[in-house]
Formats: sequence, structure tokens, C-alpha cells
Amino acid sequence: MALQTDQPIRVGLLGAGTVGSQTARLIVDQSEELALRIGRPLELTGVACLDPAEVTVPWIDKALLTTDTMAVATSNDIVIELIGGTGAAYTFVKAALEKGASVVTANKALLAKYGPELYELAEKNNADIYFEAAVGGAIPILRPLRESLAGDQVEHMLGIVNGTTNYILDEMTTKGLDFDVALRQAQEKGYAEADPTGDIEGYDAANKAAILATLGFHTKVGIDDVTVEGITHIDAADIAAAKAEHKVIKLLAVVGRTEEGVSARVYPALISDEHPLASVRGSFNAIFLHAKYADDLMFYGRGAGGAPTASAVVGDVVTEARHIAQGTRGPAIRMYNDFPIAPLDAAKAAFAVRFVILDSPGVLAKVASVFAAHGVSINGVNQDLKPTQVAPGYDGERQQLRIVTHLTDETTLRATIDDVLKLDCVIGEPSIVRVLD
Amino acid sequence: MALQTDQPIRVGLLGAGTVGSQTARLIVDQSEELALRIGRPLELTGVACLDPAEVTVPWIDKALLTTDTMAVATSNDIVIELIGGTGAAYTFVKAALEKGASVVTANKALLAKYGPELYELAEKNNADIYFEAAVGGAIPILRPLRESLAGDQVEHMLGIVNGTTNYILDEMTTKGLDFDVALRQAQEKGYAEADPTGDIEGYDAANKAAILATLGFHTKVGIDDVTVEGITHIDAADIAAAKAEHKVIKLLAVVGRTEEGVSARVYPALISDEHPLASVRGSFNAIFLHAKYADDLMFYGRGAGGAPTASAVVGDVVTEARHIAQGTRGPAIRMYNDFPIAPLDAAKAAFAVRFVILDSPGVLAKVASVFAAHGVSINGVNQDLKPTQVAPGYDGERQQLRIVTHLTDETTLRATIDDVLKLDCVIGEPSIVRVLD
Repeated sequence: MALQTDQPIRVGLLGAGTVGSQTARLIVDQSEELALRIGRPLELTGVACLDPAEVTVPWIDKALLTTDTMAVATSNDIVIELIGGTGAAYTFVKAALEKGASVVTANKALLAKYGPELYELAEKNNADIYFEAAVGGAIPILRPLRESLAGDQVEHMLGIVNGTTNYILDEMTTKGLDFDVALRQAQEKGYAEADPTGDIEGYDAANKAAILATLGFHTKVGIDDVTVEGITHIDAADIAAAKAEHKVIKLLAVVGRTEEGVSARVYPALISDEHPLASVRGSFNAIFLHAKYADDLMFYGRGAGGAPTASAVVGDVVTEARHIAQGTRGPAIRMYNDFPIAPLDAAKAAFAVRFVILDSPGVLAKVASVFAAHGVSINGVNQDLKPTQVAPGYDGERQQLRIVTHLTDETTLRATIDDVLKLDCVIGEPSIVRVLD
Repeated sequence: MALQTDQPIRVGLLGAGTVGSQTARLIVDQSEELALRIGRPLELTGVACLDPAEVTVPWIDKALLTTDTMAVATSNDIVIELIGGTGAAYTFVKAALEKGASVVTANKALLAKYGPELYELAEKNNADIYFEAAVGGAIPILRPLRESLAGDQVEHMLGIVNGTTNYILDEMTTKGLDFDVALRQAQEKGYAEADPTGDIEGYDAANKAAILATLGFHTKVGIDDVTVEGITHIDAADIAAAKAEHKVIKLLAVVGRTEEGVSARVYPALISDEHPLASVRGSFNAIFLHAKYADDLMFYGRGAGGAPTASAVVGDVVTEARHIAQGTRGPAIRMYNDFPIAPLDAAKAAFAVRFVILDSPGVLAKVASVFAAHGVSINGVNQDLKPTQVAPGYDGERQQLRIVTHLTDETTLRATIDDVLKLDCVIGEPSIVRVLD
């Protein structure tokens, strides 16, 4: 790989959408300065896209556009994959690595599904794979995990890694909006897609949890190892109750390591409004982590958007180009641990559960006795929640009942809730939010 | 530098104080896991200290202790400098680099004074110099600047980079304490030294500002280029006035780049209580930065302490050991720009100035006319500040007058204040705090 000093480092770009075209812009517009940073120039040799006629940004030379993605993937020193998804992207990333090219990608779904296989393929072919943009957009989190914390032990991470849901929850919190209203506004402002399922059900965050767990704990964690709960059952009553307790609700990707294994989960959680994550507003992202020696760390920034994501992508390209200029490569992603996935009940938690109930005498006693029968201890009860528009089936005769438990395991909690829902006086879907210390 | 695969990478440690002994602990206690992360074992070959009899921690083998610092500095692959200061540390770091050893240091004063010379010496000798722990302790900020943001343009950074002053200001804010009381408490709790000058006058933060500016703008900025104001004139009245405006006062290291050059400054500033830096409490540190494409980023964590600082040091050691294992080196610190230091008045600012005045008729008119004479426009006035114990010379007949200006340049403001202080009705030292947007 060691080339002559002034010979350009060849870069191929797969995908010319929002992030792809911004990435090309950073490479082309900053070519002189990037050459100074690297010690050799970068040359963008090809941009693969579905329809060259649709790519009209002035900084991409028309002559570079091609529909022959495989040719771009297999004829460069560095291949930037911004196609997305786990189909074609997988084929082309594999082809690039097998050719000994290094890959830079922002594709969280690809890495959550095929990451360990691709990391090993890269090492086998003496190539690198970088993907800082895949988690937290512009936020440098993966490089700190691979390098800065290389002398420490990460114990757990809590990430706000989906800007759409953070925006929705933040609007609900600051403006008292109901979920449906906040979602609609997010869609109107372009923060949420027309089909918001991947965001609001937590699947996007789940991909990032798998990546964080793999890098943080040096063990294989895939998307199928992540348990996921979204925010669709959270309503204004939950937010109001949180506020009264000086807390906020955030959708978190939570990864941890205990003696029973590693866990990777996505769920809505109540955190103190004094926690650093509580101040992460709007569509911003942040990853809070605790390491054995470094103690608490937090990384905050833009989790999405063309320019911020492109900044992270080009940071990776420059880092890898420096390695190539020196005839070497970056640190391998070593998954030297083989930790099991911790059982769901390994860690006990406290929960805030809100039921919609028929307002009749004895409801609380009936619900409380179900909790008692399952041995789930109750820490607090709130029956006078302000009614909200979206409480399913809510009308003047119905109420909401919120119960905060002491520590319990999840299986027991789920069984308790199932039995509570069998009561005639309890209707609709409950909301379930974890309470973090 | 390429050695056989199983041959240990030799590490020498200079200094066995709090950080030094914690660093040794992380290397010794985690030796097996670090070898997996690097691909080769680390061997701690020597620990130089002033008095081996004083080093009693069980994880440092007595046989490694020596007073021959030069021998340790010149006989290893990686030399960790934790002596501190700019005297002996400079001699030994230079000797190590000249021998082709890579250096890891936490010494902000050394880098603020001799950084550019040492970066060039490292490159000349095909060695690396890493110093993540020198700014923000355990917080990964220098590596993101060198690598993650290598495809972007940093525009400015605001850093809370001194835990002692942040602790003092935070105690003043949350408990309404006066400066002297908060300082005394910080000393009792070990957050401030017996001689707190270096912290409270801003000199410690100034070293970090010089390092941040050099790495952020790829240009030489030394400690003598940094202008410094401390927090000794801030009192409870300033904090109370800030609170009333939903702001907090923080001591910031501020580095920026404009067409007129780069600036590196340390000063107390008013920031909105919704700014991410406002939630940085107690002795925590954080660096907030704005880059052209990545937009806003913030990095938060422990800025000091034995274990957190050692975590950053060993992260650097592992990173460099991987390079050595691959027979290569890390990215050079390229200072390819030669920006001038921007003149003091290049950027206009708004200021909050608090005077101690004799409570007599016409004082406000007299002070206001001095401001008018200098063309400094007044944005707000507050004459009924709650008196505090430490207002210099305060007694029943004296008051405090706080004036917030519109944008002005610093030379004009200083001249205005000098003239105000000539008035008979104005006494003592004023406090001057910048107002940030």
C-alpha cells in the first residue's frame, strides 16, 4: 500500500444523496487543506449513483458519475459507502474490503447486522473499516472508544442516539404536546420521516446500541441481541408526571456489562433533570458513558444532517488516508471477548407504569393487589393525572393511574401488567418507562 | 521500530506521584487485556522518581524504581512524562524524542510553552507525542481534534478546563456563597491548592487554551499569546444578577479564528442557563466547539484526578503501542498555518461591569456620562444589588452598580472603566464579565 509521496490517494464514493453529495463537497472544496493534513492529496475518482442525471450539485464533476457501483468499489484506496441498507451496501463493502481497499461508511444497519464479519474481513485483507458517522452523526464517539479509552474499562453507556424521538419528547416536555401532535410537527419540520416507524419504535437506536456494545466491550453484539421498546405509548400525562418529579423522559440506547454478560437495550427512561443527558435538547444526540477509571464522560452534538454526517465521514477518510500515506493501517477492531448476552432479568429496575382505568370505586385496590400478588413492591401512586387528548379511549369517566415500582425484574413486571390488564376496570395499552438512578 | 511479534513494547515512566502511580496501576493490573488490545504486551521497564523510598504502592515493583531519570527517558519505546513543570520535564522529553522514543505526557505547561518545538522534534525523529490528558483530563478532546475533525474547520471553542474555578463558581451559584468562602471550602475539600493562584487567576486554563488553539487551527499559539482574566473579582452580587437574567458565570478558555487571526483568551463569561456548558457542574470540565460542518459539539468529563488522568494517559500509551506494533507512527501535528494573533479589539463584545459606589445622589448620572463620553452604549443598569460580605469596602452607605453594555471593543471599555474609577463616588475594584450570546 505504500505509494509515492505525491501520488494521490484514490477515493471512490458510493451514493450521492444528501450525505453523499455533502461528503463530496467537503473533499472537493477543502482539497488543498486536506492534502496538508494528510501529507498527500486525495483524488475523488468516481461517484456511483442510481441516476447520474439527478446529481446536479456543482462540485461533483459530471464525468465522475457512474452507475457502475462495483467498478468504483473495487478500484480505489478508500471506498465511502453511503448507499444505506443491508443489501447492495453489503455486497459492495465486502467487494471493496476483499480488494484490500479501506471502507468508510455511515451505515448503522449494515454494521449492526454484519459488523463483526466485516471487521474480521477488513483485518484479513489488511484494510480498515471506519464508521464514526454511524452512531451519533458528527459526534466523535467510536474513535474515543477505540483509542482514547483503550486503557480503560467501559462499564455502561446511555445514548440519546435518535434525534427524531429526542425532538418529539423534547417538544412534548417543553410545550406540553401530546405524542401524535409532536410527531406530526416533527414530520412537518423534516425531523421525522413520512413512515416514522424505524425511529419511534426504537429500531434505529437499536442498530446503534449493537455497534456501541461491540466496540465498548470488545465482543460480538448484533441487532438481534438488542431488545427494543419505542415511545409510541408515552403521552403528555407521563411527561407531566416526570416533570413533577424533576425528571425528564428520554429514549435511551443502554449498553452494559455485568458478570452475567453484556446487555444492549433501547427503552424510554426517566432521568433526573440534573443529569447531563437531560440538557440534550431538540434533535441533538449525546452518549454518556461510565468507565472504570475515566469515570463519567459525555459526548454531545448533531446526530444527523448532511453536513454534520459528512464531517464525520471525511474525518474518517482523512484518518485512513494518513495511514495509507504512511504505508500502514489503523487499529483493528478486536473482539477478543466472547461474552454472553445477559438474560433479560439479570438487572433489576424500577418502572413507572401508567394504566388507563375506568373511574370506579376500588380500582386502585384491585390493581395494587395484582402487584402484591406478584411480589412487585410499589414506591408511589398517582391517580390524579391531568387527562390528555390521546389517552386511548379517554373520556370524562376514565382516568389514568400511574404506579412507580421499587426494583423488580422485567419478567415479573410483564406478568403483573398482563394480569392488571385482565381487570375489567383497566383498559387500553399502558405506558412503561424505566426509572434510572 | 518494527519488532518481533511477541516482543514486549518497553514503557518507561517518569514521575510516581498521584497520576504516575495510577498510570502504573492501569498498565500493570490490565496487562493481559492491554496486550489483547495492542497485539503485543507492554512492559513497564522503569519508574523514575525523586525518592524510591516514598513509592509504596503494591503494583509498582520496587526493582523498577530509580532516580536515574535520564536512563528511563532514553531506553524505552514509549516514555510517559508525569513530572510536570517546564524545567526537568523539558530536558527529559527532548532526550526521549531525540532517541526516537514516543512521548506521552499530561504536562499542559510544557506544551503551552514548548509544544510546537516538541511536535516538530517528534516528527523529525519519526516519533510521536501524545498528550490527551493535558486538556480536560479524561475527556477525549485532542484526539477528536487531530482525527475526527480532520475533515472539517473548527471555528471556535469554549472550554471549562479548570475544575477548581468551576467548582468555586458552581458553589457560589447553587449556595449563594461569596468567593472567599467558596474558595476556602474548595481548599478544605481538596479541589483547590493551598496557593490557588494558578487556578483562580486563569493561568492553568491559559495553558490549555494555547494547546487547543494550536491543534484546532493548525498554527503555533503559545502561552504568551493568551490573554488571561481570573475570577477573583467575581462576587455573590454578580452571580445573583446573572441568575436573575437566567444566566450563569463560567470561567472559559475561548479560542477562535477570524480573518484577523486567531485568538486565545481566558475570561469569566455570562452564558445562558440553557447553554450545554451551563449544566457542567462541580469540578467537571467540558469543551464546547463549533465546526463549519459538524456544527456544535461538546465533550464532558473529569478534568482532573489520578484515575481519570491516568485513563487518558494509558489510552495514549495503547494507541502509540499499536502504532509501534505495526512498525509505524501516528499522525503528525501539522502546523501548516501561520496565523497572526488577532488584535485584542478584533472582536467586539458586550460586558457586565459591577462597580462599588458611594450611595449619593447623581452617581448613576456621573457614571453613565463617562460611558457616553467614550461612546460605550449601555444596555442595562442594576443599582439595587443585594449587598454582599466581600464587596470591597462595603458598608451601610455603599452600594453596587452593575452596567451591561452593548457591543464595544475592549480597549474602549478599559479606558471607560479607568475614567469611572477616577470618580470620587466609585471605589474598589470592579468586576468585569463578558456576555456571550
